[in-house]
Amino acid sequence: MQAFIPVPPEDVNIADRFFLPKIETVCSSTIGACLAKCAETGRVANFAKAAGLAEGGFEGIFYNDSDVYKVLEGVAYALAHAPDAELEARADGIIGLIAAAQEPDGYIQTYFTLSEPDAKWTDMSKHECYCAGHLIEAGLAYKKATGKSELLDVGRRAADHMADRFGPGKKHWVTGHEEAELALFKLYERTGDRKYADLALFLLEERGRGFGRGSEWNAPELGPVHVQDHERVTDMRAAAGHAVRETYLFCAVADAARLTGGGWRQRDGEPEPPAGQKDGENPRDSAERFLRAAERVWDNVVSRKMYVTGGIGSSHKNEGFTADYDLPNKEAYCETCAAIGMVFWSHRMNMLTGEARYADIVEKELYNGALAGLSLSGDRFFYVNPLESDGTHHRSEWFGTACCPPQLARFIPAIGGYICASGPDGAVINQYIGCDAKVRVPGGEAVLSVRGGYPFGGRVTVTVESDESRRFAVRLRKPGWCGSLRVLVNGEPAVCAVDNGYLVIEREWGTRGEIELNFDMPAAAVKAHPLVAADAGKAALQKGPVVYCFEEADNPDYDAVALSDKSVFMSEYRDDLPGGADMITVAEGGREFRAVPYFAWDNRAPGRMKVWVREAG
Amino acid sequence: MQAFIPVPPEDVNIADRFFLPKIETVCSSTIGACLAKCAETGRVANFAKAAGLAEGGFEGIFYNDSDVYKVLEGVAYALAHAPDAELEARADGIIGLIAAAQEPDGYIQTYFTLSEPDAKWTDMSKHECYCAGHLIEAGLAYKKATGKSELLDVGRRAADHMADRFGPGKKHWVTGHEEAELALFKLYERTGDRKYADLALFLLEERGRGFGRGSEWNAPELGPVHVQDHERVTDMRAAAGHAVRETYLFCAVADAARLTGGGWRQRDGEPEPPAGQKDGENPRDSAERFLRAAERVWDNVVSRKMYVTGGIGSSHKNEGFTADYDLPNKEAYCETCAAIGMVFWSHRMNMLTGEARYADIVEKELYNGALAGLSLSGDRFFYVNPLESDGTHHRSEWFGTACCPPQLARFIPAIGGYICASGPDGAVINQYIGCDAKVRVPGGEAVLSVRGGYPFGGRVTVTVESDESRRFAVRLRKPGWCGSLRVLVNGEPAVCAVDNGYLVIEREWGTRGEIELNFDMPAAAVKAHPLVAADAGKAALQKGPVVYCFEEADNPDYDAVALSDKSVFMSEYRDDLPGGADMITVAEGGREFRAVPYFAWDNRAPGRMKVWVREAG
Repeated sequence: MQAFIPVPPEDVNIADRFFLPKIETVCSSTIGACLAKCAETGRVANFAKAAGLAEGGFEGIFYNDSDVYKVLEGVAYALAHAPDAELEARADGIIGLIAAAQEPDGYIQTYFTLSEPDAKWTDMSKHECYCAGHLIEAGLAYKKATGKSELLDVGRRAADHMADRFGPGKKHWVTGHEEAELALFKLYERTGDRKYADLALFLLEERGRGFGRGSEWNAPELGPVHVQDHERVTDMRAAAGHAVRETYLFCAVADAARLTGGGWRQRDGEPEPPAGQKDGENPRDSAERFLRAAERVWDNVVSRKMYVTGGIGSSHKNEGFTADYDLPNKEAYCETCAAIGMVFWSHRMNMLTGEARYADIVEKELYNGALAGLSLSGDRFFYVNPLESDGTHHRSEWFGTACCPPQLARFIPAIGGYICASGPDGAVINQYIGCDAKVRVPGGEAVLSVRGGYPFGGRVTVTVESDESRRFAVRLRKPGWCGSLRVLVNGEPAVCAVDNGYLVIEREWGTRGEIELNFDMPAAAVKAHPLVAADAGKAALQKGPVVYCFEEADNPDYDAVALSDKSVFMSEYRDDLPGGADMITVAEGGREFRAVPYFAWDNRAPGRMKVWVREAG
Repeated sequence: MQAFIPVPPEDVNIADRFFLPKIETVCSSTIGACLAKCAETGRVANFAKAAGLAEGGFEGIFYNDSDVYKVLEGVAYALAHAPDAELEARADGIIGLIAAAQEPDGYIQTYFTLSEPDAKWTDMSKHECYCAGHLIEAGLAYKKATGKSELLDVGRRAADHMADRFGPGKKHWVTGHEEAELALFKLYERTGDRKYADLALFLLEERGRGFGRGSEWNAPELGPVHVQDHERVTDMRAAAGHAVRETYLFCAVADAARLTGGGWRQRDGEPEPPAGQKDGENPRDSAERFLRAAERVWDNVVSRKMYVTGGIGSSHKNEGFTADYDLPNKEAYCETCAAIGMVFWSHRMNMLTGEARYADIVEKELYNGALAGLSLSGDRFFYVNPLESDGTHHRSEWFGTACCPPQLARFIPAIGGYICASGPDGAVINQYIGCDAKVRVPGGEAVLSVRGGYPFGGRVTVTVESDESRRFAVRLRKPGWCGSLRVLVNGEPAVCAVDNGYLVIEREWGTRGEIELNFDMPAAAVKAHPLVAADAGKAALQKGPVVYCFEEADNPDYDAVALSDKSVFMSEYRDDLPGGADMITVAEGGREFRAVPYFAWDNRAPGRMKVWVREAG
């Protein structure tokens, strides 16, 4: 079961006015800043100490290894984007320490090695699987980028170590923070070794059966729902618990649906799909169970628990989900990591189902919820992304729990992986990020070149080139915000079929064809669902994929800011805005207010900010 | 009291891809067709007979003279647009007959001269003032276009004839079909002779005072409201009665407000404004009374009695207004003349108040309600413009009561007069019709050149040229349908003030400046007011100023046509559509429907048509 196969980042050469500078900022600034912080805070030293190469005890929080792994994954994508011998050497040095810190039986987590060597695998809340998962993901990425296997070998040994301990007839285990599951599926896909997929499936099926326990089992008052241990995964109907955990869990659920289901993908030389996990269950039935759960919970998030910015996990108390439509603005949690987790999950849903609405959410996060976490300079970060601020909320250089900066470091340089895919009948374009991408199409390969004014202009061109003329479809996502457009194919007006949210142009392409899309992209006031109490009587401003906010820096008369159905929105591209952006001037009731993209806020004079503003009568 | 002075058509050189071919069609086809029909049907011969130059009795309906005058007015605008010696000679011939038909005392209406010479001025329902009004308008236009006074002299003698008979202390008279009032105001403005304005004011104030009577007094069951004789004009609060009559009445009311109020316009050598009509009333108070009535009734029409196409007068029974929100689609009357009357009225309101919303309605009629009356070929006409057809409603070559074809003949060639105006602080652009216009601005004159893709594209450029650099404002109407736009001034992004619905760019212009407007113009489903029962559960499709309809010719599955909030609208410029137009393909629920501009309907295969279609769930 799989509709699309993603075109990996290494087959995509980014040429985007908007994102290329951001990728370069992450490569040149964010990754260096994260590495420096990992060194300063003892995160790197913990490996040296665990390896016996340095003196002293464990420093920091038990899950700190994961930050190092995530930065290394980011380094791998940065090296894939542009070789950098100095950066690679620096990473190799850290990898050497990691390898040295691994215990002979494959166990690796410096906290336990250094502080509680006898307490390994006794407390499910201590992120041992979580850290191993990030290690595996980093190892896979680093191998792909550099050809070097050392980090992946560490990861695989860690995976083998877990597979030896957990599984049917072995030890029960509920991961206290999901991540290993999706990493193990990735490892299975790269190695063909089914035991990794079986372990991932086992871990998914362990949840909600009463096996979970641990010293904190994250704050007893939050209960097992906090770690998604309150019911069987495939019985879940609504998003619940800690938001990052939830997204990672459902990444794995989507992987499980895809891999157990098999389907058209099955290429020569690929491993057999893993069996379903219930005794004697047909793998296709198993896939169906996983798919339905992932669809249901994703729908619940997107229709009832997501901010207009794509932010999810509204509450500080549990860093997670609460009741439907409970979306306070100033108090919003909206962790950067959760927005990025929503990308990981939604992308998998899109590949699985071929439905554009999932890629719509990838877009929403790319230009709003996820991107807001990163400062223009690349070295300051939001952990928490409220939709309203009293002027005291600002980006920081680092955090005690430092998941978000490395998450951005591994996310932004890899966005090439979300742009294109191969479908059964041809090429798929999911994001309108300028690039040249090599895409497998029936009968061969095509190079698709995307260019355009996204996210501030709706004109996009796509050229389709290949060595010989072939007949295939090009599927172009119709953005969810857009209901009106104009299409030209080879300069001629055209009408497309619309299928699963995609504009479909199927034809004999010759060796070069050109598609021009003109998405009408008006700025417009949007309303929240009427059950969202926090937004009653309020409206927000959106233009194309970009959600706007009003900063005090631009609005001396901040308290008067309002929108109405008579508002006039004038967009103006301003080089002097962070990264270059459209400012929107709102002429409303004889006054003028100014809005900037939400992702760009808190990059200039500090002050108040709001996304939802009063609706004038 | 006057905000703007219109730039007359003779100062506007039309260069518009959309309207220029239509003007040329009217000049080359419509006018000829109307002249031929006026000849065929005895309308021209009636003048010859009345002059004693031909044998026989009056042929046709008593108001038929007006059709000849209206065509001659159209001929004048056609000659102003492009000289045509043959056409002018033909018109001169008819004018000679008209002059010869005028009685020695100035009376002219061939019906009475030929059929009831002793019944003149005894029956207010016999259109004597109406015909005289059209004669005056034609005479003014013909003089302006050709320099020839003969027709105007006839008109002025007719006006003198009326002024001798009607007025304070003379005979009471309620015009059974308004028109003379606005013509008399025009005559006053051109001649400076205040008696014409005084007569017009007298006629306005005669209404609703019990003086109205006549053999039909248009169908007793309709009552005096049918001819707007049910209350004093300045007490009126809602649109009522016959729609064309109402629009002509309020043209004159707007003129009365402007002319009695005086205001900044007063130029050297201009006549003194007429006094208010009530005894001893201050002219400014009088102007205020007229203005408030015109505003109130106009608002009532536009917010409660107008179709989305701009059609007004929903009922066949009275060819006019009924209750608020009574807007049936298949049974709609929507006379072409009334839509054009709405242009005349709204244009006057715009000049009077400087408010863009009035010019929005001019635009709505220009691209929808008024234009629909004319076939692509220019020689077939709708009198009635329903919003839905069972397939039996088609344009005709002519009508027994033939007001509409000559109305189009005099309207379309004069649309140059609706584009630009002079405001107190500079130039005003009301319509985005391509043209070069000479506009008076503070300190001199500027040439404004408008170019763009209207009505199917939202990009408009305006160049501003003058012999020396001057500081002034350019006011550009923000179309009512548009809330989102981008502006460049001399290539630089700009933000404009918004005032009375206009984007205002005030600056030192140099000898050449350039404004680029980009109005976001998405196709979108629109809903009727919830109190319009006929449109409950329905939606219509609009793109920019153009309202669309669904014809059976394009939709074999006509009964299934529907719109929803998930509809995808794909616009495609099609040379093969009548006049060249955007077709919109609606992808809705797995089906495709095709919509064409409402103005273009019934130009291809006959069949059913609808503007309002089912809203899918």
